[in-house]
Amino acid sequence: METYLFWLVPIASILALAFAGYFYKQMMRESEGSPEMQKIAAHVRKGAMSYLKQQYKVVTLVFIGLVILFAIMAYGFNLQNHWVPIAFLTGGFFSGLSGYLGMKTATYASARTANAARNSLNGGLRIAFRSGAVMGLVVVGLGLFDISFWYILLDKCIPADAMNPTAKLCVITTTMLTFGMGASTQALFARVGGGIYTKAADVGADLVGKVEAGIPEDDPRNPATIADNVGDNVGDVAGMGADLYESYCGSILATAALGAAAFIGTGNTEMQFKAVIAPMLIAAVGIILSIIGIFAVRTKENAGMKELLKALSTGTNLSSVLIVIGTFLILWMLNITNWVNIAFAVVVGLLVGIIIGQSTEYYTSQSYRPTQKLSESGKTGPATVIISGIGLGMISTTIPVIAVVAGIILSYWLASGFDFTNIGMGLYGIGIAAVGMLSTLGITLATDAYGPIADNAGGNAEMSGLGEEVRHRTDALDSLGNTTAATGKGFAIGSAALTGLALLASYIEEIRIGLERIGTTLLELPSGISITIREASFTDFMMYYDVTLMNPKVLSGMFIGSMMAFLFCGLTMNAVGRAAASMVEEVRRQFREIKGILEGKAEPDYARCVQISTQGAQREMVFPSLLAIIAPIVTGLLFGVPGVIGLLIGGLSSGFVLAIFMANAGGAWDNAKKYVEEGNFGGKGSEVHRAAVVGDTVGDPFKDTSGPSLNILIKLMSMVAIVMAGLTVSWSLF
Amino acid sequence: METYLFWLVPIASILALAFAGYFYKQMMRESEGSPEMQKIAAHVRKGAMSYLKQQYKVVTLVFIGLVILFAIMAYGFNLQNHWVPIAFLTGGFFSGLSGYLGMKTATYASARTANAARNSLNGGLRIAFRSGAVMGLVVVGLGLFDISFWYILLDKCIPADAMNPTAKLCVITTTMLTFGMGASTQALFARVGGGIYTKAADVGADLVGKVEAGIPEDDPRNPATIADNVGDNVGDVAGMGADLYESYCGSILATAALGAAAFIGTGNTEMQFKAVIAPMLIAAVGIILSIIGIFAVRTKENAGMKELLKALSTGTNLSSVLIVIGTFLILWMLNITNWVNIAFAVVVGLLVGIIIGQSTEYYTSQSYRPTQKLSESGKTGPATVIISGIGLGMISTTIPVIAVVAGIILSYWLASGFDFTNIGMGLYGIGIAAVGMLSTLGITLATDAYGPIADNAGGNAEMSGLGEEVRHRTDALDSLGNTTAATGKGFAIGSAALTGLALLASYIEEIRIGLERIGTTLLELPSGISITIREASFTDFMMYYDVTLMNPKVLSGMFIGSMMAFLFCGLTMNAVGRAAASMVEEVRRQFREIKGILEGKAEPDYARCVQISTQGAQREMVFPSLLAIIAPIVTGLLFGVPGVIGLLIGGLSSGFVLAIFMANAGGAWDNAKKYVEEGNFGGKGSEVHRAAVVGDTVGDPFKDTSGPSLNILIKLMSMVAIVMAGLTVSWSLF
Repeated sequence: METYLFWLVPIASILALAFAGYFYKQMMRESEGSPEMQKIAAHVRKGAMSYLKQQYKVVTLVFIGLVILFAIMAYGFNLQNHWVPIAFLTGGFFSGLSGYLGMKTATYASARTANAARNSLNGGLRIAFRSGAVMGLVVVGLGLFDISFWYILLDKCIPADAMNPTAKLCVITTTMLTFGMGASTQALFARVGGGIYTKAADVGADLVGKVEAGIPEDDPRNPATIADNVGDNVGDVAGMGADLYESYCGSILATAALGAAAFIGTGNTEMQFKAVIAPMLIAAVGIILSIIGIFAVRTKENAGMKELLKALSTGTNLSSVLIVIGTFLILWMLNITNWVNIAFAVVVGLLVGIIIGQSTEYYTSQSYRPTQKLSESGKTGPATVIISGIGLGMISTTIPVIAVVAGIILSYWLASGFDFTNIGMGLYGIGIAAVGMLSTLGITLATDAYGPIADNAGGNAEMSGLGEEVRHRTDALDSLGNTTAATGKGFAIGSAALTGLALLASYIEEIRIGLERIGTTLLELPSGISITIREASFTDFMMYYDVTLMNPKVLSGMFIGSMMAFLFCGLTMNAVGRAAASMVEEVRRQFREIKGILEGKAEPDYARCVQISTQGAQREMVFPSLLAIIAPIVTGLLFGVPGVIGLLIGGLSSGFVLAIFMANAGGAWDNAKKYVEEGNFGGKGSEVHRAAVVGDTVGDPFKDTSGPSLNILIKLMSMVAIVMAGLTVSWSLF
Repeated sequence: METYLFWLVPIASILALAFAGYFYKQMMRESEGSPEMQKIAAHVRKGAMSYLKQQYKVVTLVFIGLVILFAIMAYGFNLQNHWVPIAFLTGGFFSGLSGYLGMKTATYASARTANAARNSLNGGLRIAFRSGAVMGLVVVGLGLFDISFWYILLDKCIPADAMNPTAKLCVITTTMLTFGMGASTQALFARVGGGIYTKAADVGADLVGKVEAGIPEDDPRNPATIADNVGDNVGDVAGMGADLYESYCGSILATAALGAAAFIGTGNTEMQFKAVIAPMLIAAVGIILSIIGIFAVRTKENAGMKELLKALSTGTNLSSVLIVIGTFLILWMLNITNWVNIAFAVVVGLLVGIIIGQSTEYYTSQSYRPTQKLSESGKTGPATVIISGIGLGMISTTIPVIAVVAGIILSYWLASGFDFTNIGMGLYGIGIAAVGMLSTLGITLATDAYGPIADNAGGNAEMSGLGEEVRHRTDALDSLGNTTAATGKGFAIGSAALTGLALLASYIEEIRIGLERIGTTLLELPSGISITIREASFTDFMMYYDVTLMNPKVLSGMFIGSMMAFLFCGLTMNAVGRAAASMVEEVRRQFREIKGILEGKAEPDYARCVQISTQGAQREMVFPSLLAIIAPIVTGLLFGVPGVIGLLIGGLSSGFVLAIFMANAGGAWDNAKKYVEEGNFGGKGSEVHRAAVVGDTVGDPFKDTSGPSLNILIKLMSMVAIVMAGLTVSWSLF
């Protein structure tokens, strides 16, 4: 048995963390610039850290509550594996740590980036990108570290004599999903809280500063400007880090669980073990190739925009090409059943990610017709900008959905050995495609995370008066980041859909374990045949629980799932609206009461604005996040297993489409405004520009709060369902 | 056997048509007012009729294409019943006729309503409401007429000796669904085309007239004003008439088909017959009670707003209470199995409709907090109005979804005799709840349809200079209509969800017939057991086709279904945007080129604007409508039966929630603007008002184009799937 291959997983994780430390130290050696720059950076850093401290306090309370619940279920009623409460805690802890470390790096890097940008574009890029890489590598490193730790621990601690080795692997993999739930829970709070914070500050700063007072973005006279820069860090850095940590672990763990399940009927422990470690190995190889890719991002001094873009693309493309080769190699070494097909499923996953990324770019970049036409619709005012943007966003869901559908069918078909009735392997193929998509996360996240760093560098340059050229360079870096981030977003959304499906399949697996736990050994199927739980296939469970599309409980669950996606978005949209309104009032108050603020003679009260955003975000994040945890539990108690599966699938299909709609509409509005600002249709200050600014403001919560949170919502609901499966199989009202 | 009871159905339909004729004549006897008023009414009438003529030309072409396709399938390949092409045609014809007659009445009634409103509010109400009743009664009368005609014809013409009597009833009821598809197809074109027309004109007229030139609504100097009034007729009257004709027939036919299917295993032909005619009888009783309700709407001369509202509520409430009694009576006479429970399912349906209506009113009326807060968000500009409106709309989906879920579970549970495994009767119960909800359509549609008549009367009063007071009275009638229309909309959306489910179940039934047609007699189930097609239950078909939630074809279908709802909305939103932009340019051109137009010295070129809206609507309606027809066919060819069922259910769950979101957000924006205009937050002309107008303009296509079209999309996709089932069972790619 190729056991030795497993050790590649912890090794790769430590390698990732080591390189993250190296890049961090490298960045810290750079100069942070003038005292003024240092002061501003310290302001932002302090605000961001104090926000995170506050946020983690609230999350800790929620975690305490949930851990008590799990402890009662696990130790009191024996409805769960005894490791669940602890695994849940570590997942939350590491997800929070990813966000913290990424944000810490970002807040130290922004002034340094601004300072380096005083000399050259290339210098700025190097610092910003390497700092982004810290975040990318921390996320994947901690993820694989946590996975290997738990795998080794559980493998040692779960007694093998109590059950046969195949069943043992299933228990291990599904227990590990609990730490995925911890990560999801933390990530949802981070995304929702951070998203509300950043957009309340951004919308508030824009509405009063840019629109009413007519001062430019990041102007030090605007009291909300520090809060706005803090927001980029807590939302786009800490939130995204926690989010992708969760996606990464979720896809690997769900696929491992499916691998364990796929071979449960065969009794072939060796193949089952290989199927479990295959996703981890693909991820491990991906880490190494990401590091190579990161080093490949280099360009000559005084390079122009075009060369910089080429340098970035070289890095990500290199990693993508290498991962294909690496996957074939590692699966060949594992010699897993049907390995060529499974390797092709990885290619399918990568292609789906790339297609979604390209389509995102087409619909949201001002280089293409859709966004240009959106700008043009500003000629007839803000209302037509909104109508056209919503239309654009809705239409833009077509290509990603078709890509995901093709990905589902192809990866299933390949992994099943071209046999649609081979459900276990087919679902495993879908999981593998998701893992393939996220395997190079180390570098794709780096190209994504350096955007907010460049953005903050721009803010620092503006506030410390470094002059037009530096600001121009940081803007160029930021806009370069937008282009590469489109692909990154494609991978995030696409992987959420596929991971959601894999988690759903894991839920069925957890049902099996839950039934065994409450002492059920035989399933009596509707056909009258009885079958042992261990032998039961996916289809047998579907029959047993009547999870067909004509069961009213399934239908009810689906309606609730669709509704959850909309309700969740509605709550977060309104939260941003309310928090932004308090910010607007505060900024207006300061302009009114602090004399000399607009003349630059008096310093505004930045701290008060930071506080308002913090409080607003904390107050508003709790209800929608708890709702996501409660919905699957209540649905399970009412409608049992069929209701929960309906809920998950309704939430997944509606939530996925809704997430793309919101992300793309928001992105297009943002760039439509930029297109006008580039001098089209009258340029800055024209009526068209005013209309485009309205679109951009509406788009802010679309693309940075509600849209990305949906990705986590989809997965968190599945995770909660998995962890609560023990309860659901024991009791339901109908 | 209580065969004689069936004759109540044609009798009620003729009664409805007779009273419609009576009310029409009564209205025509009233004076149309001054020559100026008559001239304007003639303008609007001519525009509306010429639009309908153009529209029906395009629809005829589409119908010719589809009938040829059906004829080839029916006569060439024997994939369909031979009556299908003809039934399809009559459905389209009667749906079109409902729209035509309703619109004709409305265009004759508006000037008469304005003229009567010169004397009293009550006089205006009487004419407008009775004219609305013409439409309500025409819709239900033609619907039941078509149903009885086909039932009698097929009962005579389908040879009973070829199959046993139970199978015969199934063939009859599912063939009749074909005329439902004809109605749906026509209705979709009517809703989409009419919706684009009316909103292009409305948005165009508002953007240039109100916002740029600062002239009031319906001002005769605005060249788009006639087009705007024509739009109310072609969108809100003809479109709605065709739409509800389709809902009404669809719910009755789907339920009849489920009734036939529920007893197919028992061989109890008598009970099967009763289950088939029960929904028709409930509808027939509903017609008679609607007529009673219409007569109950009366109030004393010079009644105030409050009394008028009371009069309207008395009518609808009376009908609702009576229909409960009537249902118990008719089901008792039928003595159908489990009749008490089935009667309670009707009550459930009525209650769900009422709850959705109340929730719609709460979220969209300016008498309640949500809309008032939406107005207040205008203080920080148009962007926050849009953000808050979208948030409000998304949150407002919660109560309707919970109501529908409760309705599904309860009506299923009741009709199944409290046994969830009794799927046939349970699904029949869901259908019966939908029929119950729509049973009093005669009067609910009257309270809905008189709104646009009052609106047009207001337009006529404004253009012919009848003075403030008349306009004030017609506005009051219009706003009264908005309140009652909220309940009407609740019934329309709720019934669409339940009917969609019933149609989905009928699809499975059609699969049975399709399989028999291609010569399959035995189903080999995955468990290894074979079963004859005639004996196969719903669950057996689900097993046979593996329609479980882990089948990748089902999942793919669901993603495509969700995407279809968004894509369809996006296309119609953009269509309105484009058509409105041409209107804006034309109005600007006329203001620029026709001298003296704004001083009221020269007459604008109304006809050109009517033409632009007509052409825009015709050009834009074809693609989205054809897409709705093509999607289920292509999905079927790719992924077979599991894919189609996934598509329908994905479209249903996402589409339902999306439809509520769009309708409520749009309604709330409309009334938030009215709330400001009533003098709150600065009133007309203030910054808040300008922001609220942006919201209202964005809401127009939400609530009057995309939202209501979704209702039909959901059902049309099911209808197409049913009619194409013969093809889907014969061949698919995967």
